[in-house]
Amino acid sequence: MKNLISLSLRHEHNELLILNQKKLPFIEEWIRCETVDDMHDCIINLNLRGAPLIGIAVVLMLAKIAEQGMSKDKIKDNAELLKKVRPTAVNVAHCVDRFLASLDESIEMAILTAEHIFEEDFELCEKIARHGADLIQSNDCLMTYCNTGGLATAGMGTALGVICMAHQQGKNIHVYVNETRPLLQGGRLTCWELDRAGVPYTLICDNMAAQVMAMGKINGVFVGADRVAANGDFANKIGTYNLAILAQYHKVPFYVVAPHTSFDENCKSGADIIIEQRNGDEVRGLEGSFGKVLWSPLNSNVYNPAFDVTPAHLVTMYIFDTAVSMQNKHMNKVSIRS
Amino acid sequence: MKNLISLSLRHEHNELLILNQKKLPFIEEWIRCETVDDMHDCIINLNLRGAPLIGIAVVLMLAKIAEQGMSKDKIKDNAELLKKVRPTAVNVAHCVDRFLASLDESIEMAILTAEHIFEEDFELCEKIARHGADLIQSNDCLMTYCNTGGLATAGMGTALGVICMAHQQGKNIHVYVNETRPLLQGGRLTCWELDRAGVPYTLICDNMAAQVMAMGKINGVFVGADRVAANGDFANKIGTYNLAILAQYHKVPFYVVAPHTSFDENCKSGADIIIEQRNGDEVRGLEGSFGKVLWSPLNSNVYNPAFDVTPAHLVTMYIFDTAVSMQNKHMNKVSIRS
Repeated sequence: MKNLISLSLRHEHNELLILNQKKLPFIEEWIRCETVDDMHDCIINLNLRGAPLIGIAVVLMLAKIAEQGMSKDKIKDNAELLKKVRPTAVNVAHCVDRFLASLDESIEMAILTAEHIFEEDFELCEKIARHGADLIQSNDCLMTYCNTGGLATAGMGTALGVICMAHQQGKNIHVYVNETRPLLQGGRLTCWELDRAGVPYTLICDNMAAQVMAMGKINGVFVGADRVAANGDFANKIGTYNLAILAQYHKVPFYVVAPHTSFDENCKSGADIIIEQRNGDEVRGLEGSFGKVLWSPLNSNVYNPAFDVTPAHLVTMYIFDTAVSMQNKHMNKVSIRS
Repeated sequence: MKNLISLSLRHEHNELLILNQKKLPFIEEWIRCETVDDMHDCIINLNLRGAPLIGIAVVLMLAKIAEQGMSKDKIKDNAELLKKVRPTAVNVAHCVDRFLASLDESIEMAILTAEHIFEEDFELCEKIARHGADLIQSNDCLMTYCNTGGLATAGMGTALGVICMAHQQGKNIHVYVNETRPLLQGGRLTCWELDRAGVPYTLICDNMAAQVMAMGKINGVFVGADRVAANGDFANKIGTYNLAILAQYHKVPFYVVAPHTSFDENCKSGADIIIEQRNGDEVRGLEGSFGKVLWSPLNSNVYNPAFDVTPAHLVTMYIFDTAVSMQNKHMNKVSIRS
């Protein structure tokens, strides 16, 4: 397999390397993934995260074991295993299914497909970013959630890609970043990316978003999506639904930004999306490059869904690489695929 | 001054002792406050917190220096200093003004007033709790924010006092606790209090509240108030306004619970309430019994208001010790004072 380089995923000299996102922003540590188990652990531990990136990393791993001569049956078993690690995002299944279809032709075709999935993400992100940046004016103040940038994709990102594209186009913008508890992808990762890109930003706790909107500061909220159902409901990082309600209340446009691979035509509505539940210690405290801290009684009962579902009626516009759709009235296979 | 004992404030053997709330729930450390400077530091550092409790602790401190023979003029200077430490809550000014009025009569009267302010808080909290508990049915599932219990008052608390009273009345209830970033008073303190009281609870991150409401789990949200304006707008811990919008969207009753001393008839509306801004490191990371951790780029620009203002129209009912008022149509001097 050839060399492939992105911000947080690399295939170089036949080694598959993952930037450990749990240690950012202070430590840039790369993890070598040699086995499917390594990849599984990296995904479940969130060393590697971001719905598009997980799909890409998984097929690169499968391509590696195919290259190493593993039997097709065993590759398929491993593919099924990796598909299930984080069930909410649809991109992983989408990428894996494409890889397996090629594998039925030949090992070589499967490897080429994996390389292609990595490389096409650049173009896909750029298309998304250009579509979205058209909606941003100079002097706009935007809000974003979680991390949807170069760390979450092989390209420039989805929602954060849109924001960075507007900045690259010379528009004078400012970004409010929600920290995104419990895992602080906003505070740790989005701030790190915006710093690198030179985009001015202000970090807030998630519960300050309404106050910022009430001051009339926000012209648009841009968020990603792990899965968009056929009716326009979508799953994204827990807290997205909160933010969508606050945006509606303050009459702030709310934009959902994703690759077309996040659209799941087989999923009728948000009620059909499986929501992953995670370990309670993520809420009782947190873990990072500084170690693990806990601040709540250790026996606290905890609810810790990794995602929530936002109903379509709270969305102003969907921004895909393939299409831009107003609300859910255009939300059907035809408009999204066209 | 006589001995006075509450959950987090004690006057014993002529020593004024404060439970260090920053170290809870794992370490129970008492801080001796010998000087006005000690008290000032305890308040600004949040070792001592909770609008009602700050007011009480301040007058006990002033009573101590009065007892030690400090001149009336110097006491008044110190009173003005302590009044300004946390400007959003009105209780402090209210307590201090009562103390100073007595001081004009005599040192002895001032000390008696301070003792009385401490002791009357028990009764006041109990009245609030009984009013509020009438609104709670067995099998209700409630939500609360920040910490408004025995740690925040000299009595059983305000919003959390209502919840604990319902539990004491034998009602089968469950409480969802918002962790309350940045300082985690929910995750650290409310969980600790509910644990002690034996009330079943589930801890969530603030951005999960909408998801919990969407599941139809919540019958009522109970929050405190640092200052209630004449028109019913009120200031409370940052994030309260978020929660009020989410409650309205999900048609969940939203109750504001406070002593009548939180009502500020001189403050026309929320626009007149001064909002304290705090150090950005509280958002870039956090500090507790485990030390200080930072997880965002150190140069991150941060917005960190300690409070927000919720407009009256989002409130279902105000629960005071003196009155229970529906929305703001009854929100005037007469109904609150009666």
